[in-house]
Amino acid sequence: MNSRLREPLPSLTLNRRSGTPLYRQLYEAYRQAILSGQLRAGAQLPSTRDLARELGISRNTAMYAFDQLLAEGYVRGEVGSGTFVESGLIGKEGSAVGIQSLVHPRVEFSREILRTSRVTQLAASLPAIPFRTGLPALDRFPLKVWSRVVAWASRRASSRDLNYGEPQGDLHFRSTIADYLRHFRAVKCEPEQIFILSGSQQALHLVARMILSDGDPAWIEDPCYPGIRWVLLALGARTISVPVDDQGMEVERAIELHKAPKLIYVTPSHQFPLGVTMSLGRRLALLNYARKVGSWVVEDDYDSEFRFSGRPLSSLQGLSPECVIYIGTFSKSLFPALRLGYVVLPQQLVDAFSDFRRATDYCAPYLTQAAVNQFIIDGHFAHHLRQMRALYSERQSVMLGALRRHFGDHLWVKSADTGMNLLAWLPESVSGRRASQLASGRGLLTIPLSLFYTSPPPRDGLFLGFAAINRQRIKDGVETLAKALNDVLNLRRNIAKKTFT
Amino acid sequence: MNSRLREPLPSLTLNRRSGTPLYRQLYEAYRQAILSGQLRAGAQLPSTRDLARELGISRNTAMYAFDQLLAEGYVRGEVGSGTFVESGLIGKEGSAVGIQSLVHPRVEFSREILRTSRVTQLAASLPAIPFRTGLPALDRFPLKVWSRVVAWASRRASSRDLNYGEPQGDLHFRSTIADYLRHFRAVKCEPEQIFILSGSQQALHLVARMILSDGDPAWIEDPCYPGIRWVLLALGARTISVPVDDQGMEVERAIELHKAPKLIYVTPSHQFPLGVTMSLGRRLALLNYARKVGSWVVEDDYDSEFRFSGRPLSSLQGLSPECVIYIGTFSKSLFPALRLGYVVLPQQLVDAFSDFRRATDYCAPYLTQAAVNQFIIDGHFAHHLRQMRALYSERQSVMLGALRRHFGDHLWVKSADTGMNLLAWLPESVSGRRASQLASGRGLLTIPLSLFYTSPPPRDGLFLGFAAINRQRIKDGVETLAKALNDVLNLRRNIAKKTFT
Repeated sequence: MNSRLREPLPSLTLNRRSGTPLYRQLYEAYRQAILSGQLRAGAQLPSTRDLARELGISRNTAMYAFDQLLAEGYVRGEVGSGTFVESGLIGKEGSAVGIQSLVHPRVEFSREILRTSRVTQLAASLPAIPFRTGLPALDRFPLKVWSRVVAWASRRASSRDLNYGEPQGDLHFRSTIADYLRHFRAVKCEPEQIFILSGSQQALHLVARMILSDGDPAWIEDPCYPGIRWVLLALGARTISVPVDDQGMEVERAIELHKAPKLIYVTPSHQFPLGVTMSLGRRLALLNYARKVGSWVVEDDYDSEFRFSGRPLSSLQGLSPECVIYIGTFSKSLFPALRLGYVVLPQQLVDAFSDFRRATDYCAPYLTQAAVNQFIIDGHFAHHLRQMRALYSERQSVMLGALRRHFGDHLWVKSADTGMNLLAWLPESVSGRRASQLASGRGLLTIPLSLFYTSPPPRDGLFLGFAAINRQRIKDGVETLAKALNDVLNLRRNIAKKTFT
Repeated sequence: MNSRLREPLPSLTLNRRSGTPLYRQLYEAYRQAILSGQLRAGAQLPSTRDLARELGISRNTAMYAFDQLLAEGYVRGEVGSGTFVESGLIGKEGSAVGIQSLVHPRVEFSREILRTSRVTQLAASLPAIPFRTGLPALDRFPLKVWSRVVAWASRRASSRDLNYGEPQGDLHFRSTIADYLRHFRAVKCEPEQIFILSGSQQALHLVARMILSDGDPAWIEDPCYPGIRWVLLALGARTISVPVDDQGMEVERAIELHKAPKLIYVTPSHQFPLGVTMSLGRRLALLNYARKVGSWVVEDDYDSEFRFSGRPLSSLQGLSPECVIYIGTFSKSLFPALRLGYVVLPQQLVDAFSDFRRATDYCAPYLTQAAVNQFIIDGHFAHHLRQMRALYSERQSVMLGALRRHFGDHLWVKSADTGMNLLAWLPESVSGRRASQLASGRGLLTIPLSLFYTSPPPRDGLFLGFAAINRQRIKDGVETLAKALNDVLNLRRNIAKKTFT
C-alpha cells in the first residue's frame, strides 16, 4: 500500500537529453509528488539502491537527489529503516503551495505608486533618432581613449578598493569635481560637501525626500523638467508651478501669490525647456527670499557645460552657497549609461544626507568613479567638452539653417547659446500634440512644448534635439518634418518656391 | 564722483602668481564691489583700454572680464558711452546676497529624515579587520581576470551602449542571471521579471516603497538585518518583529497574534544573524498565509551561494513565485564596490516597479553589467564561488578551532554550513555590548547580537566574520579576543592550562 511504496513513482520518467541533471529531475519529481499530496506524510521512499537499479541510474545520482530532499525537509531519513515523507507539509487545502496559481489574489500598491501610476514618463531609453532631446553626441564620444582609461583604472585597483565605499563617494574624485566646479561653474564648495550619485534623477529623488514631507509646498518652474515633477508627485508634496518669462522664474510674482515653500527647483543657467537664463536681479531676489523664509533652492545645472560663446555662466550656488543645493551630471558631458552625477550640499545637510544615502543604496561603484577621475585629470574631459561645444554649435546652425530653408517664417525658432535642444514655436492655430503626432507618423521624435506645462502654454511648440545626430541626418530630418507638417502649416507654396529656385 | 569713477577699483590688486587667471580676478573684484554696494547702480566702469593701461594687463583680459560681467547681468554696456553697473541688484538690506553668512537660518528636514535621525547605522565601509562581518575574501578576488574582462567589455562597447538603458537593466545580463537563479537557487523566473539594481539595499528601499504606505504593517524577523529596519522606519511603516527559533521565523505565532501585514521580510536560506534555515513546514505555512491575506513576501537571499556541503538550498520563491519578491546581490559573491544586485518580481509588479525605478535613478550602469555578464558566461563566476566555498569553510574551521582552544566552553559556538559569519554565545552573566567594547579596545570589530534584536535577546553573543581575513589573522584575532574577554569570562585558568601544555 501507498505508505509502503517501494517502487519509483509511477509518474516518474527521466529525460537523459534534457539540460537538467538526472539527480535534479529525480529531486523535482519527488518534490512535486510530495507537495501535490500524491505521496502522503509517512510514506516510505524506495532505497537509493532499488531506485538506481529500477531507473538504470548511478546510485550516487539517487543519493544526491535524496540528500537534497532531506536537506530541504521534504523527507526524513531513519538510519537502517529508510526514507519517509515528512509530515505536516500539506495544509487542510489538500495540497501545498508549490503547484498553485501564479497570480497573487490581491495587488495593493503604496500611496506613492498610486499617486504616480497615471503619469506618463518620458522614456529616456529612446535611440538617437531625429530629434531626440537631452542626448549628447554619442557617435563622437572618444570610446578608445575611454576604454584605455577604464582598463587602466581597473588594473590599478587593489583589494581595498573592492570594499564598500563611503556614502559620499571616492575622495579623490570629489576633489577633482570640486576643482572643476570652482573654476568652471563658480560653485563655492569643498570635497566634503559633494556626494557622488548615479545621476541627477537620483539627486532629485534623495534631496526632495530629505527636505519634503507629504503635503509640504514646493515651487517648480512652469514649464518644467518632468523628472522633478514626478519625484514631487510621488512624495505627495504640494507642487506650485511658477510661470517663467524671458528672465527665468517669475520670483516676485510667486512671492506675492504663494506661501513660503520648503523647496524651490530652478534651472537658472539654461531653463528647461525654454532655454532662457535667469537674470541676476531674479537670482538675487530668489536667494534673499529663500534665506529669509528658510527655503532650500535646488539648482539643476544639467547642461551648462555647453555654452558656445565664451565661458559658462556662474552658478546660482556661488552667490549663496548656504541655501542652494547644486546638482550636476555626467550624463550629458560624458554619456548617460555611465550613471554618474553629483550633488553639492550646504554643510548643514551633509550628515543627514550621508545616513539617508547609505540606507538607500550605500555608495557609487568604485570602477566608474576611478575611471572618470582619471579621464578628467588626464585632460580628456576638458578636451571632449571643447570638441562637443564646437560640434553642438555647428549642429545647431545646420539645424537652424534647414528649419529656415524648409519652414520660412511658418515656424519661429530662436538660436540658443547653450545646450543640445531647440524650441520651434508653432502658429497659434497648431497644437504641439498634433504636430508631434504627424512627425512621429514619419518616424521623427518631437516633444510638444505643452507637455512640460501644467497650465495651457501661451503658445505651443516642438522641443527638438540636435546634439545627438549628424549634419546629414539633421538635414534629412528637417526635410521629413516639413513633409509631415506640410498640411497643417500650409508650407506647400513655400516649399514649391524653394524647389524652383 | 562715484557714479563717474574712471579709475580701477581702489581695492583692486591682481596676483600674477595665483592659479586664478587675471581676467577671473578682475571679474571677481568687480563682482564683489557691485554685490557689496561699493559700486552703486549706474556707476560707470573705466573703459577696457584705460583699465588695461592702469593695471598693465592686455586689453583682451579686461574685455574678457567685462564680457563675463555683462553676460551675467552685473553691468550693462551702452555702445559709445561705456559700461555701467546694472540697477536693481541691491536689496533694501544694503548689500546683495553674495557676501553674507554661510549658515542657513533654518534647517528643516522631512519626517522621513527625522524618523531615522536617531538610528545608528552599521557603517558598511569599515576595513577588513578581524572580525568584520558581511565582507567576502577581497584578498582572494581574481583582480587580474576581472580587469581583463572589464577591459574587454569596455573596448567592445558601441556608441549605442552609451545611451540610457532600460530601467530593468541589460537583457543579456538578465538572461544570464535568470539561468543562474533557475539552476542554482531553484528560482522560478524569466528575464522579464528581473531588475538590475545597485545592491540589495536599493532593492529593499524600492520594494518597500512600492508596497508600503506610512502606517502599513510589515513583519520582520527578530533578530533582523538592520538594512530593512532602517528602510521601514524611514517609510513610517508599522514594523512587527516576529521571534525566530531554530526553524526560522515563528510564522504560526505571528499569524495568531498580529493582523495581516502587507509585507513580510525573511532570510529563509540563512537567517540573519542567527544562521538558521527556515523549515519546509514554516515555509509552506508562511506562503499559504501570504497568499490568503495578500501579503508580499520579501526573500533576502544575501549569502546562500556559500553553502559548504552540497548544493545551495532551494529558494522560498521557487515554492510560490506569485507572492515572493526575491532579492540577490553580487556584493558577497563578487565584491561590494561593484554595486550590483537584482530583484525578481512577480509579473504583476513589473510595470509599476519599472516606472518607479526610472523616476528614482533610471537604470544600472552599462559597463559593470556587461563585465559581470561576461565574467559569468566565461565561467569565472562559478569558479570563484567554488574557490570561496572551500576557502570560507576552511577559514571557519580555523576560527572554530582557535575559539575552542582559547575559550574552551566559556564561549558557545555552533559551526554554520553557510556563509561568512559565526555567532559566539556568551554566558548569561556577560552582555554583548560590554564584550564588544572590550574587544574594540584591542582593535577588534565584533557586533553584539543584542544589537539586532528589538526585544531583549534570550541570550547575548558576539557576531563574528571569518571570510575576509586569512588563517593567521584569524588565529591572532581570536587570541587577542581571549585577552580582551579574559576578565569577564575568567579564562585565566583555562589559558594558563594551554600555556603549560
